[in-house]
Formats: sequence, structure tokens, C-alpha cells
Amino acid sequence: MNESIFILQGDIIYTKEAGKFEICENGYLVCEQGKVKGVYRTLPFTLGGIPVRDYKGKLLIPGLADLHIHAPQYSFRGLGMDMELLEWLNVNTFPEEAKYRELDYARKAYEIFTENLKKSATTRACIFATVHREATLLLMDLLEEAGLGTMVGKVNMDRNCPDYLSEGSAKNSAAETVEWIQDVEHKKYKYTRPILTPRFIPSCTDELMENLKKIQLRYSLPVQSHLSENISEIAWVKELCPQAEFYGDAYDRFGLFGADAPTVMAHCVHSDEREIERMKENKVFIAHCPESNMNVSSGIAPVRRFLEEGLHVGIGSDVAGGTTENLFTAMAHAVQASKLRWRIQDESLKPLRAEEVFYMATKGGGEFFGKVGSFEPGYEFDVVVLNDSRLKHPQYLDIQKRLERMIYFADDREVEAKYVGGRKVL
Amino acid sequence: MNESIFILQGDIIYTKEAGKFEICENGYLVCEQGKVKGVYRTLPFTLGGIPVRDYKGKLLIPGLADLHIHAPQYSFRGLGMDMELLEWLNVNTFPEEAKYRELDYARKAYEIFTENLKKSATTRACIFATVHREATLLLMDLLEEAGLGTMVGKVNMDRNCPDYLSEGSAKNSAAETVEWIQDVEHKKYKYTRPILTPRFIPSCTDELMENLKKIQLRYSLPVQSHLSENISEIAWVKELCPQAEFYGDAYDRFGLFGADAPTVMAHCVHSDEREIERMKENKVFIAHCPESNMNVSSGIAPVRRFLEEGLHVGIGSDVAGGTTENLFTAMAHAVQASKLRWRIQDESLKPLRAEEVFYMATKGGGEFFGKVGSFEPGYEFDVVVLNDSRLKHPQYLDIQKRLERMIYFADDREVEAKYVGGRKVL
Repeated sequence: MNESIFILQGDIIYTKEAGKFEICENGYLVCEQGKVKGVYRTLPFTLGGIPVRDYKGKLLIPGLADLHIHAPQYSFRGLGMDMELLEWLNVNTFPEEAKYRELDYARKAYEIFTENLKKSATTRACIFATVHREATLLLMDLLEEAGLGTMVGKVNMDRNCPDYLSEGSAKNSAAETVEWIQDVEHKKYKYTRPILTPRFIPSCTDELMENLKKIQLRYSLPVQSHLSENISEIAWVKELCPQAEFYGDAYDRFGLFGADAPTVMAHCVHSDEREIERMKENKVFIAHCPESNMNVSSGIAPVRRFLEEGLHVGIGSDVAGGTTENLFTAMAHAVQASKLRWRIQDESLKPLRAEEVFYMATKGGGEFFGKVGSFEPGYEFDVVVLNDSRLKHPQYLDIQKRLERMIYFADDREVEAKYVGGRKVL
Repeated sequence: MNESIFILQGDIIYTKEAGKFEICENGYLVCEQGKVKGVYRTLPFTLGGIPVRDYKGKLLIPGLADLHIHAPQYSFRGLGMDMELLEWLNVNTFPEEAKYRELDYARKAYEIFTENLKKSATTRACIFATVHREATLLLMDLLEEAGLGTMVGKVNMDRNCPDYLSEGSAKNSAAETVEWIQDVEHKKYKYTRPILTPRFIPSCTDELMENLKKIQLRYSLPVQSHLSENISEIAWVKELCPQAEFYGDAYDRFGLFGADAPTVMAHCVHSDEREIERMKENKVFIAHCPESNMNVSSGIAPVRRFLEEGLHVGIGSDVAGGTTENLFTAMAHAVQASKLRWRIQDESLKPLRAEEVFYMATKGGGEFFGKVGSFEPGYEFDVVVLNDSRLKHPQYLDIQKRLERMIYFADDREVEAKYVGGRKVL
């Protein structure tokens, strides 16, 4: 499949910056060595004779990047949605995650997760697994086979979680993590990378955080975690780390807040000015998870503020705080939540527009994976072909309008083909 | 299809009251003369020999009632979602509605609308058409053929709308309405009824409202309109009707607020205590339209308060303020919006639960159509058969959990069969 050069023809739409679509109707999108060579209205003479794959009348968009999703929670998506975060973790999440000690269960569940992620418009994802080393490797095997570009984390937890799920001690948690990383190295995955994953401050002792920092430096790993999601969680962090200036500082004190490595923090619903400033300095990526923030009653993140500050903001489905891996739905929720925030909470921050959430779901989050999420030359050739003919309409619609409809309606039925780094995976 | 007695077998779930599911696993739902005869764990001896339709392993739920949807706006669902209500009406809605003067366009558009409504889980709906008499009849023909139980309104507007859409004068608007009602009477529809539809106070002069009251009494028509949706709209109504005590009073002064006829008002996002009290006195039905209220930045209605007061509350998709006719999505939005309202606006009103929004989408709104929306004996036999096998899961899920998942995920793929008043329409 990885032919060195090939061409897709269709209705091309993407963003270089938040708030502005680039559109090429019935144009040509050229792939060379897995990268975008360019977008052309008419094919240059030098590309004559190269086979053209015909997606005429279909939308060609960059693959979507999911900056935050919990694979083991996929099994209970859409369930038990009557609790706030901390209760929800204890009642729904921890008992389910404990099941992944059993590889048979893990395989059954992770196969469903991987199959559905493959059918979606997502080409890149930052994924939480569980504390279990073997099940995490199994998940990585499945994702590698699916051909998606992912970063997967074995979760670390050594406090404030049920005994049946705790790793017991900082030492054990760190040792398991090193063993997992070494196993991953032996696997020689092409598309699947490990990412350091302290669950969140309440579940990691200082000693564990210190150990993780050493591991992070030794293996040059990126980091993912949770930040300033829910009011009761934030109050708890303050109790646990009275010395931290703010929630993010509790990570930063251990060097796990973007200073040395690409870091993505999910939520940031209640980040204050100091936290925003620190994220900017440290180039932390924010995974905005609007549906999850509704479902577990966290609130609405000030995304407009993040964009104005020039922070890196992407979108996360946050299954199973969010119900669906479908990032189009997440984009719609981002727009909708921003409108409610504007109306109810703070009129100074204008609602998000389609062109902005689309940017966040493509290039905004994609950049966590390198040059991903745009069709500018040199970007990874991550392409989703959307066939929007299911959604009938009586009037003419231009490409931008067709894309706007996709944000509200597209699901796996619209995803006709998908390329990741030039490889056709669907 | 309208056999006098038949039986469905499957996993039955419904609500008699808000907040409590009634469940009968692998039970029998018996239809007699188009009405529910009863739900049985084991079939009574007297029903022996009656054919049983096998929906084992599938969910049997009451048909859903959409208390507020605009058929002509279906064409631009999911489009132009960057405006508040009044701008959105002028830029998106009115130009599109004007096209329905042309019957060819109306047929093309209304066929798509009707086809999709038929495939959905909706069995009953209150529908706005446009000001055009002929196109409204055409829509009613299509809905009658689809077998859905609907109330359809030719819209009235004689002020504050573009000339190309205005009915010109109160007299003309009233005359067109009478002619439309007489046409409807000649049609002798079985399942499709006319409903009086002053668009909203800003688009109807006092003279028109007086005329509509006469028409309402003469033909014993129910009424549908909009109420207290958006802050700028409410301010405008106050300007237009300084004598009205509150928005709803502007309808009530003309006797068009439930006093003499079943009346449904969409939105009620900003209803104050006086308006809530009047709705209670007049038995006004509220169509809660959570997605629309996000999309056009209206806010979040205090639904918990309505339920506590014992008001009639149903769900409306409000396409195209809302994007989708899928009332499962509307239920999810109702839960999600209520959580944000609790978190951000008013902690005294607890979030809505699955059992409550499901009640609203079935019996709560269904009662606007009579005994509709429950499986209690004597209720209309409106049944939707949901096949939830597409949504794979590794663990056992009980019926209530399977239904909760449907709220977040079901679309037309899950709707395997549908009965309206005992007739199988799908």
C-alpha cells in the first residue's frame, strides 16, 4: 500500500490556522513517501502518469487526532452517567479497569475498541490503558495491526485507588513501567509509541512522580495526564499538594509538565491565569473534552482564551467520560458548550466556530504527533475520505457547508477510506 | 396490518412516571384494537393461539413524541450555526422557508424530511410547516402516507418578517388559514391533524391573534408556538406588547395559551415564576429543546423546576435550531445541558437522569396526543423495536443499561420496527 507516490482526487478541505478553511474543489492531493507533496487545482505536468484514486464528489479532510481517550472505559461508554467525576471513578471506572488484569477480557474489550477506532475518522490518538502491563501491550499490538498512529500509556497509580487496582508502591509502579517500556522496545512497533501516564495527581505519590521523571528522561517519553477537570478534584489536589501554586504546578514540580517533553493535559476546565501562563511557557498541549466535561458535570473550558493565548489546543473524546470516539460529535459539542459558556458564564469569550473546532481536531491536536493534521507540504499523509451522500438535501451546498454538516452528523457510515502516513488502513 | 389482536415478544421497558423505569425482560406486549392490552411476563391462557412476533433480545420501547420540529428547516440542519436566534431567522430560516412557495422544491425537501422521520424512533410529532397553504397540505399528504401520528401547522406571520414571506395582512393570513383547514377537512386524513401555528408573538399582529382565536374556537384546534426562548427575543416581545405581564401573557390575552385548547409552547428557557404558574394553570405543554437552545445560544431551560411543579414537559428536536430529528440525541442533550446548568448556573436544580428524559420523550410529550407514550393498558400501541446489537460490549448489560446506551447512541440503524396506534409503519 505504501506506494512512494500517488494521488487522491476529491473535494479537499483543511485548515492551516484556526478559523480559516482552505478549500480546493475537485482538486488533487498528492502523497509522496507518506507525506503530503501538495494540493493542486490542476495536476502539474510532472505528475502525469501517476495513478489517481477517484474520490470525486467526496470530501478529503485531514485525519482527526484524539488527544485523550481511555481504551478500557470504552466498554461502559454511555453508562452510569449520573455521577460527578470522583464518584464516577469509584463506581464505574475502577471496577471495570480492574477486569483488564484478565487478558481474555482485555482482548475481547480492546478488540471492540480498536475495531471502532479504526472505522472512525481518527488517525492519531493519545490513549490511556490500565495499570496492567500485559493488557497494555495487547492493546498496543491491536492498534499496531490496525495501522493507526497512537501513543499508548500504561497507567500509574499507587494511592487513592482501590487495593484491587493499586500498584501497591511507587517502586513497584515504576518497575512495572520500565518493564513495559522495555517490552515495547522489543516489539519494534512502527506506529505505536509508549507515553508516560501518571493517572492524575491524586493517584500518584511524590515518590512515584520522582521515579516517573527519571523514567521519562531515560527513555525520552512524552507525557499525558489530567488537569483541572472538576471542582472537587481540584480541591482534593490542593489538599494533597499544599505546596503547589496551582494544579499544574503539582506536575511541574516533578518536571512532568512539558518542560522536557511533549506533554498533553486533558480538560483544563478550571485553569486559572497562572496555570494558563505556565502551560504557555512549557508548551503543554490541552486536550479539550467538551462532552466529558458535561457528562461528569465538570463545566466548560475557556477554549477561546486558550486560542487567544496561542496555546496548543486539540480535542479529546475522553471516552468514557465522553460517550463516543466520534470526534465530529466532539467538535459539535465543543461549539455547543462554548455557546452556553458565552450565554451563561462569561460573555467576554465568544463562542467557537466550525473553522476553529475543525482546526483543533486536525492540526491543533495533530501537532502533538509531529507534522500531522494539515495538507501543507511535508505533513504526514493522514487523510479521511468522507462520503456525505447519506445526508440528502434539496439545495446546492458548497464544500464548507458540507463539512459543517459533517461536524454535526458524520459517523463511521461517512468514512469511506482512511490513510495514515500514506498507508491506506481502511 | 391492523389485526385486531397481536403480540410482540422482547425486552420491554417504559415509564409510567418520570424517574422510574418499568421493565419486563423477555416479556409480551399485547395489542388489541390498536391499543395496549397489557404487558405480561408469561402469556395468559386466554391469549393462547394468538401469533407472537418475535423480537427476542431486542428492546421494546414506547414510540417517541417530538413536540417541536420545523419540517422546512430540515434542509439546512447542521448549517449556519454561528448565529443567535433572531439573526439566524433572518439569514438562514426565512430565505429557505420562502422556497416552499414552489411545490416542486417543497416536495423534494419534504420527501427527505418525511423519509427520515419515518426511519427514526419518533411516532408522534408537532410540526411547523411554512406560511404556504399548498406546501403544508403536501407535507401532510406525505406524513399521512408514512403513517406517523402528527399535528401539522401552516404558519401564520403578518409582521416582522421579509415581504417575500409575510402573509401581508391579518385578514389574508386568517383567510388562508381557514382555507387550509377546510382543505384538510376534505382530505379526511386518519393520522394527520391540523394545529394552529402563530409563529411567535413578534410575527403576529394583535388583529391576527384575534382572528386566530376565532378560528381556534370554530374548528376546535390545538395550538403550538414559541415561548421565552432567547433573551433578545424576550426583550423584543416586551417592546411589542408592553401591556403583557410576561411573554406567555401576550398569548394568553388572546386566549391562545392553553385556556381553551391543548397548547404546546417550545423552549421556555427563561420563563419566570409567573409564566410557570400560568402554564400550570392553563395546562400548557412545554417542548424542551435542549440542542436548539445550545445552538442558537439561548441558554438552558429549568426543566427540573417544571417537573417539580408537575407541568407537562416533553422533548422537541426543534430542527433546524436543533440539528437532528433523532430524539435519543435530544434526550442525551437534555441530560447534558441540565448538568451544565447545575454546575454553572444554579445548583438548586439537580441534573436530569436517564429515567426522566426518557419519560419526557415518551409519556411526557406523548400525552399531548392523548394516551400515548406508555405501555399501560389503554394507551395507543406506539412501539419502537430497537436492535442494539451494533454496539458491541464485552460485559453483561441489563435492560436498563442497554436503554441508557440507546439514549447516547441509537439512530435509525437501531430502529428495526415501528408501530403507531397498532399499525406497523416500519
